[in-house]
Amino acid sequence: MSGLINRLKADDAQFEAQFQALTSHADERDPTLVGVVADIISEVRSRGDAALVEYTRKFDRRAVERMDDLVLDGAALQAALARIDPIDRDALEMAAERIRDYHQHQLSASWSFTDDYGNQLGQRVTPLARAGVYVPGGKASYPSSVLMNVIPATVAGVHEIALVVPAPEGNLNDLVLAAAAIAGVSRVVTIGGAQAIAAMAYGTETVPRVDKIVGPGNRFVAEAKRQVFGAVGIDMVAGPSEILIIADGSVDPAWMAMDLFSQAEHDEQAQAILLGTDAAYLDAVEAAIAAALPDMERADIIRESLGNRGALIQVADIDAAIMLSNRIGPEHLELATRDAEQLVDRIDVAGAIFVGPMTSEALGDYCAGPNHVLPTSNTARFSSPLGVYDFQKRSSVIHCSEQGSAALGKVASVLARGESLTAHARSAELRGE
Amino acid sequence: MSGLINRLKADDAQFEAQFQALTSHADERDPTLVGVVADIISEVRSRGDAALVEYTRKFDRRAVERMDDLVLDGAALQAALARIDPIDRDALEMAAERIRDYHQHQLSASWSFTDDYGNQLGQRVTPLARAGVYVPGGKASYPSSVLMNVIPATVAGVHEIALVVPAPEGNLNDLVLAAAAIAGVSRVVTIGGAQAIAAMAYGTETVPRVDKIVGPGNRFVAEAKRQVFGAVGIDMVAGPSEILIIADGSVDPAWMAMDLFSQAEHDEQAQAILLGTDAAYLDAVEAAIAAALPDMERADIIRESLGNRGALIQVADIDAAIMLSNRIGPEHLELATRDAEQLVDRIDVAGAIFVGPMTSEALGDYCAGPNHVLPTSNTARFSSPLGVYDFQKRSSVIHCSEQGSAALGKVASVLARGESLTAHARSAELRGE
Repeated sequence: MSGLINRLKADDAQFEAQFQALTSHADERDPTLVGVVADIISEVRSRGDAALVEYTRKFDRRAVERMDDLVLDGAALQAALARIDPIDRDALEMAAERIRDYHQHQLSASWSFTDDYGNQLGQRVTPLARAGVYVPGGKASYPSSVLMNVIPATVAGVHEIALVVPAPEGNLNDLVLAAAAIAGVSRVVTIGGAQAIAAMAYGTETVPRVDKIVGPGNRFVAEAKRQVFGAVGIDMVAGPSEILIIADGSVDPAWMAMDLFSQAEHDEQAQAILLGTDAAYLDAVEAAIAAALPDMERADIIRESLGNRGALIQVADIDAAIMLSNRIGPEHLELATRDAEQLVDRIDVAGAIFVGPMTSEALGDYCAGPNHVLPTSNTARFSSPLGVYDFQKRSSVIHCSEQGSAALGKVASVLARGESLTAHARSAELRGE
Repeated sequence: MSGLINRLKADDAQFEAQFQALTSHADERDPTLVGVVADIISEVRSRGDAALVEYTRKFDRRAVERMDDLVLDGAALQAALARIDPIDRDALEMAAERIRDYHQHQLSASWSFTDDYGNQLGQRVTPLARAGVYVPGGKASYPSSVLMNVIPATVAGVHEIALVVPAPEGNLNDLVLAAAAIAGVSRVVTIGGAQAIAAMAYGTETVPRVDKIVGPGNRFVAEAKRQVFGAVGIDMVAGPSEILIIADGSVDPAWMAMDLFSQAEHDEQAQAILLGTDAAYLDAVEAAIAAALPDMERADIIRESLGNRGALIQVADIDAAIMLSNRIGPEHLELATRDAEQLVDRIDVAGAIFVGPMTSEALGDYCAGPNHVLPTSNTARFSSPLGVYDFQKRSSVIHCSEQGSAALGKVASVLARGESLTAHARSAELRGE
């Protein structure tokens, strides 16, 4: 054994305790962080742009004097697009087109029907007016994240998209700006942190108040999103990234090792687990990990992540693997088996399912089409990939006929009086009198 | 003027300030409450059923000894159904049937398509495994709330529904239990408050851990829902109820007065506003308010609510009314105009739209079919009525062909290297080598 990754056996007596420890999710909030973020939000609410400029000078170490210094217009974005390598541009444009095509399938339309009384009932489905997209700056500045967060909003028909990205020491990533241009964004404000979330949640002189904020960020951003939730919609507060692979031993162990690395390289808390039925195959995957690791650019991060939270778990059979997978409810699930297609309908909880040996998770991160913003930390039990539905809202529509109003009024009256809400009852009755 | 309700004119110099004060939403959290609720959640997490029994003895003043004393089985619910007045039973059953019929239209199905490379892409749509429904006890115990919260979950196909309702001093409402039976619930646990939310979020020996919690409650319940969000899904934290009426003067002022009352009678913070184009008509509505108020069962609550937060607002024309309505984004919007049908498409933000003179909001509260759980406090900007979609979740499904994997791998590799994520790039490249 290499010791590079934890090895577990599902039939061990200690397995349940080990499994729970391995897959538990931290959910403590840091009270100091809560206070710091609350103060920042309060300052931005009361002082607007002036507070944004101050915080940007301080936290991003930039010698800016006014908000104008923080705004990039469409021409600046187009200039970045012109500057980047044409190979990168082609890749971003192809990814954007595929993401757009896929997300078109998620558009909901208004609907209505007429009941036997002639009442018309339905829902009006409309786009949000304004969405805010947070893009991290610095070392974790990802153009793919721009495409994944902006395109569903544009497909939904959101009227105005505010995009913010911090520029620590003034550094900006041209690929990020180019991706914004390709996604259809016409203005970027170079602010970040809790102050950027506060600005989008409440509005300042320069930053519009939005209806919903999406996009990943550091712990200040995550805490700020929690705090402004209610005043504004938020996507989700993402935890560490996760991959789970169910392997029957038919796929090249070297591919499996690299798929585990592709999650582990995100950060030290990322989780990469492979469930296999065959001890010899797990040994082969472990050997492939040991062979490939030294050459990896982020070997240190991968080593720590695999050692902390990674595991190769031996299970009795594929049924047992599926049961464990449904308990974990992973962000990314690869079905690396011969009969992968047959297993899909047995997956109850997962952010995204990668079916068959040719579907590496990395394809989904960039350009297959589906969104890479996915529920983590077992929240796939109740939430979904970011999608067009996150940028549409619904209003119920009720149009009663005279006959329908009279008929429903009788029922409503009985129920309202049962709840001692007499004005409700009278309001329902009056139309029929 | 009666002084019973505020009168505003949109062309007054002070109007904007008055309007903002009238329609502002409190969003302060009480730090003492936050701490009390955090302690309760922590106790329930660590001590399970034992903590639930203790809190129920204390807060609900019940001489219970063990969890068995707090569980009502299917037979108890059927007994309540047999006990209630057949008129109430018929009304509940008719409402349930209409709510079920309407919500069937909201069911989403899994979908997929095949792209030019032969890649299959789509989403698998499945029900949540377990949902928890909170029903308030005591004076605000509403059987309609049981139907509205449970039926969308049953239509979605949720496997198990946990319903909790507190029984202060042991008192339970037979209509609530009967509604639970009609909605298809097979067991009720008579607990409430933050302890009930904690039990459903984390599970105890008797209460299953659920995936999502829905249903209204007092401030302890609302704060607890905020705190457990993330570990479990929640619906929304509802603010005071609201009605906005756009009136062209063609509808009987007495109907308008009663519709305003039907919202105002909920509680002293409820908001009832009517926008009208004609001062004489607003006078007539105000006179109708004065005439009808003394006979109302909840006259005191209505008087305080209308005096605090109610208003008759005179606007120049229907266009101006729609503009104000879209700023308010009300929970309930009545279009009490001759051309109501033509206005619907101009409503950008509203929880539910009641079209035309025959559609009183009370019909929607009970039996028209649409859900009465609606976004308040202007959150209709980004959220929707409770629906089947709240009890379904989605997993992306990606199944790449050999050809597709190679083609996408090239693009993913370029983009991953642009983000310095080499393991992602290698994982995408390996399949094509």
